[in-house]
Formats: sequence, structure tokens, C-alpha cells
Amino acid sequence: MDNNHYCVIMAGGNGSRLWPASTTACPKQFMDIAETGKTSIRNTYDRFSSIVPKDNILVVTVRKYRDLVLRDIPELKEENLLLEPYARDTAPCIAYAAYTLFKRNPQATMVVTPADHLIDDDEKFREAIVRSIEFVSENNVLMTLGITPTRPDPNFGYIQITGGSAALQKAGAIKVKTFTEKPDVSLAKVFIASGEFFWNSGIFVWTAETIIREMEKHLPEVTRVFSGWEHAVGTPMEEEFISRAYTDCVKISIDYGVMEKTDKAWLYPADFGWSDVGTWESLYGCIGEKDMNGNIFNTAKILTEDSHDVVVYSSTYDKLVAVKGLENYVVIDTGKALLICPKDDKKLKEFTARLSMPGFENYR
Amino acid sequence: MDNNHYCVIMAGGNGSRLWPASTTACPKQFMDIAETGKTSIRNTYDRFSSIVPKDNILVVTVRKYRDLVLRDIPELKEENLLLEPYARDTAPCIAYAAYTLFKRNPQATMVVTPADHLIDDDEKFREAIVRSIEFVSENNVLMTLGITPTRPDPNFGYIQITGGSAALQKAGAIKVKTFTEKPDVSLAKVFIASGEFFWNSGIFVWTAETIIREMEKHLPEVTRVFSGWEHAVGTPMEEEFISRAYTDCVKISIDYGVMEKTDKAWLYPADFGWSDVGTWESLYGCIGEKDMNGNIFNTAKILTEDSHDVVVYSSTYDKLVAVKGLENYVVIDTGKALLICPKDDKKLKEFTARLSMPGFENYR
Repeated sequence: MDNNHYCVIMAGGNGSRLWPASTTACPKQFMDIAETGKTSIRNTYDRFSSIVPKDNILVVTVRKYRDLVLRDIPELKEENLLLEPYARDTAPCIAYAAYTLFKRNPQATMVVTPADHLIDDDEKFREAIVRSIEFVSENNVLMTLGITPTRPDPNFGYIQITGGSAALQKAGAIKVKTFTEKPDVSLAKVFIASGEFFWNSGIFVWTAETIIREMEKHLPEVTRVFSGWEHAVGTPMEEEFISRAYTDCVKISIDYGVMEKTDKAWLYPADFGWSDVGTWESLYGCIGEKDMNGNIFNTAKILTEDSHDVVVYSSTYDKLVAVKGLENYVVIDTGKALLICPKDDKKLKEFTARLSMPGFENYR
Repeated sequence: MDNNHYCVIMAGGNGSRLWPASTTACPKQFMDIAETGKTSIRNTYDRFSSIVPKDNILVVTVRKYRDLVLRDIPELKEENLLLEPYARDTAPCIAYAAYTLFKRNPQATMVVTPADHLIDDDEKFREAIVRSIEFVSENNVLMTLGITPTRPDPNFGYIQITGGSAALQKAGAIKVKTFTEKPDVSLAKVFIASGEFFWNSGIFVWTAETIIREMEKHLPEVTRVFSGWEHAVGTPMEEEFISRAYTDCVKISIDYGVMEKTDKAWLYPADFGWSDVGTWESLYGCIGEKDMNGNIFNTAKILTEDSHDVVVYSSTYDKLVAVKGLENYVVIDTGKALLICPKDDKKLKEFTARLSMPGFENYR
């Protein structure tokens, strides 16, 4: 394995969309929500351990999750755990990691990955990553792994490739034409029918140098707060420096801040069985059992009547869940909380956002 | 306290209408579902202990609940625990108790009461019972305690009194004109508006002799299977005799079998804060907290949106229940099962009846 290749696992999310199964006290990346036998962050770490040297795997998270990261990856060295004072979305997180890696190794390539994705086929995944690393090592581009869409899901970003679907016939990467964040279902249907669109996996591959240059160009409001990083990251001053930088930093995603603006965006089409585990639908689309009315559940026993497209999750496997008269709902049951809500992701988000009111501290 | 007065607690119900809080393994009479600090059967026993001598309190239940009765009333003497081989509704249960008491004491008066009712005002209750006992001791009638209705609940039996509402002005008991089982809501509204109707509490007072005569007259199919009781009850042959009798016995309620047919039905109007705890609505109508949208709940924390008239019960008090978009539902959560169903009692009953299918043995 090449010592110039690194992986950065982003593990700072609070997993609020899967509340109450996932809570801010223990977000989904620190859970085995898909029942694989390991937590998501551990699966991610192990998956990359066969692609890059273990000492080249970094984890970026917010400070409050430090102990959870070390619980799941006790062998992680201190210098490979980057702690953010607050979550500021992906762009500042990637800037912090890129400066850190560039200072360690100016030749560094970086794979950037969320900590909580589900991957079915590790071998295909490995191949896509290795090919992407080879490509960005030779070409000055920002690579994103694109997933062939299987349904018009309005919760994903969609990426259009150049040259139409014919370009897909050529092996390897393809230049990106447009990014579209979360289209409505009808637009998503058009996208899929065209054959030119992929889901944005949120897994990126590039060199530290290229992403730093593109951020300086498209996101000066972020790179500005990191001024002086050369003298701070990897030194005893790092914590104080990062605290100050984050205090002044905007909250912005790498997709919105860089990928939608750059002319260096490329896509590697991938087909390794992927779920971002971002919503109950996407999680159970991969792993749940579905009855003939489209009800999906993880419990041993379910009794339904006049119900369809209900997602049932219980932290107690042998609990019987009996549901009558629900359509397009989620029923999420943990020891501490029970959520019954229409499945629509926006409604779910709006509703659970009310947990930020005083009095719900113990349940978030 | 008069040694001729007895109380018979009927404790054989399987409490299926409050499933899954109440299960056939532990029906509601053996639970403290209203959170009073004692189980319902214990509350019932204690309430009658100040009205009749303790040795004059009998419990009738099905054999499988024997240990639960003795768990809650360890001081109950063996001869005062009547065990039915199967549940055959109230008429055979009352026949068994009446023959037992008549053999012990031909002067016996009997109060017959379900084991699971909630009574708010013990003193008013005591007064109603004592007055009723006095009345039936002197008059050859079947007395039922009538409850002033507070809502047009279609789940109750309604009793019309003779002589119109003016008769209520006289103290004491009133002769009954008609019994009507579970009218629809619109008819129940007419009943209530008339001022002539009471809810049938299912609590009866009579002498053993009178009820035996009236059963022989109106329910010969029941009394026939008890032929020879004089030589069997209270003897070593009792268990075998009762087993044979119940095998051949029809399943029928005392209301349908006797009260609707007899000309000896009287009513004692009572106002002691009563709930039969027969449905979630009736239980929470008495004791739950209600928010401004009519949602009733027993948990410490609830979060609702676009929801009204939802009954929430959790066996875990500090569990947060978050409900969006439900109207007229019950949400019943125990450690073993979760029920989400329209509140309508018939729908609930039909739905939970499906638990009799194979595979649900552990959840009934």
C-alpha cells in the first residue's frame, strides 16, 4: 500500500434524521443500526484498512464524540483524530483534514468518506477507490463516487455527467456537467430516465493540494479562517488555533461550496451496493424485510392491517408491533422514546426539530 | 357487619380489550393499570372489607388465574376461591356463586362485582351498596347499580327507569323499565337527553335465593347443568361437578340472560365516580392528563403535532412519545408489544382478535 494515500473518515454528524434510534448522545455512526455486527464507523475503518495503511486513516469528529470514536477504534493514534469544536458541515471539516495531510505529506491523496454509509460489496468498493486514487494522482481533479440510482429518491444530490450515457462506455472516470441538490420526485424521475445522472455518494477522492487550491478559489470565506495553518496544525497550538478558526467559520457543505462551482469535478461510476443510511427509507431499502404491502420492519413479529409503506424499527427484536390504519409512516421504538410520524423526510425533520425546545434535553 | 351479607368478586376476565397492556397471562384485574398503588382486585377486596365480613368475600375466577388471585389476596381462604374451568361469561359464574352461598346460608344476600372497576369515592360507594343490601333484604328484587351517564358512550349498557325522571326525586331504588346493550352514539345521546337512562355498572345486589329463582325461570339452560348442586358444592366432589357442568354450559351474560327478561329488575342510582376500565377511553376519561387537543397520556413526556384524541399509554413512565398526524388512535406501548390502532372499540377488538392466530402465543 502506498504511503502517500490517506483516508479521512468524517464522523461528526448528529444523526438527527434517524431519531430516536440515533440520538445526539450516540449518533448512528457509533451504532450498528443496520445490524452488521459492528458499528458503522468501525466498518468504515476496517473497509479502508485494506486500501491504505492504518496509520494513514484519520477521523474528524466533534470533540464530544472523541470517546465514542476511541471506543470503536481504540488503536487510532492521537494525531490521527482531528477534533472540531462544533459541527460546521463538511467544507471546514475537509479543510482541516486537507491542511493536516498536506503538512504531513505534500503528495498526499485523500479519500473523504462519511462514517455511516452501508456498503454491500467491499471488493467492488475497494476497486472503485483504488482506481479513483490512481486517477487523481495523475490528473488534477476532484473525484466523487457516483451511484447508479435505483429510485427517484428526493433526498439525494444528483450529478449529471458530460457526453451523455455513451461516455459511460469508456472505462473509468467521467467529467461532471452539473450538480443538483435534492430535486423533487418528478424531476428525479426525468433525471433517472435520461441515464445521465448519478447519486452523489458524498465519498470524494482528491489530492490534498488540489482540494486546498479549489477551496481557496471557491470558498475563501473558509480558507481565510485557517490562515496560518502552516504554523499551527500538528503543533501544540493546534487546538487553540482550530477553536478560533471554527468560531469564525461559516457552516457550509463541500458540495455547495466547491463541487457545484469547480470545473474540476469528475465522477467515478460505482456499483457496490450503497446506502447513506440518511433516512429510514434508505436504510430499510437495503436491509429490511418487506411484506406484500410494502411495510418494512426489523422486529421478529409484526401484525398489520389496512397499513402500507410503514417503516417499523424497534431496538427490541422480539417486540411485537401491531399497526392498523397507517400509510407511509415511520414507527421507531427505542427504550427511551417512541416516534410515530409520516415518513416524509421534511415532515420528520420539522417535527423532530421541536426536540430542541426546553424539556427534551434527555431525549435528543 | 351482618353475617348474612356476602360479596362475590368476578375475576375471570381476560382483559383483551386493553391489550397489550393487559394480557391473558396477566389481565387488567391483576394490574394497577390506573396507577392507584394497588392492583384492581386488591382494591376491590379492600373496598368490600369495610362492608361485609372478610370471610364473606368470595372470588370467582378461572383456574389459570388462581395464583394471581392468591398473590394479591393471600389471606383469601380456599373455600372462598371458586375456580371455573373456563370462562363462560357472567351467568354461569353467578350461578356457581349463588348455589355456593345459598348452601352456606339460605338467608345470604350477595353483592356481585367485577374485579377491575375504578371507584373514586369509597364512602359514597359504601353507602350505595349498604342501601341496596337493605333494599333487597326486604324486597324480592334484583338490584343493579346505575351510573349517571356523562357522555354518549356506545360501549356501555343503558338502563331506563320507570316513571320518568321525576321518580329520581324519591330516595332509594327505582324500578327498571328497559335494558339496552351498547346503543350507537346517536341513540345514546337521545337516552342521555331524556334523563331516564343510566349506565349499567355491572354491579348487582340480590339474595342468593332470588337470583337462583330468576335464573331457574329465565335461564333453565344454565341452571339445568347445575342440577344436583346441593350435593356437590362445598364437598370434595365440587371440582369434578363444576368441570362437568361448565363443559355443557352455554356462554351467556347475566344481563342478557336474566336482567333483560325479569320483571324484578331495580336500579339504585349511584354517583361515586366510576369507570369500568373496559376501554382505553373509559380508563383515561377518569385518570389521564388531557392536553388541549384531547390527547390523553400517562407518560412524563409527550410531543404531538397535527394529532387529536390520541390515547397514549406506556408502561415506562419516562419514555418520550412523539406523535404526528394521528387522530382518534390508541398508542399502547409495553416492553413486549406496541399497538397503534384507531381508537374505535370495535376496530380494536377485531384487530387484536387476530392475535389468536398461530405464532402470537407469547404476546396474547
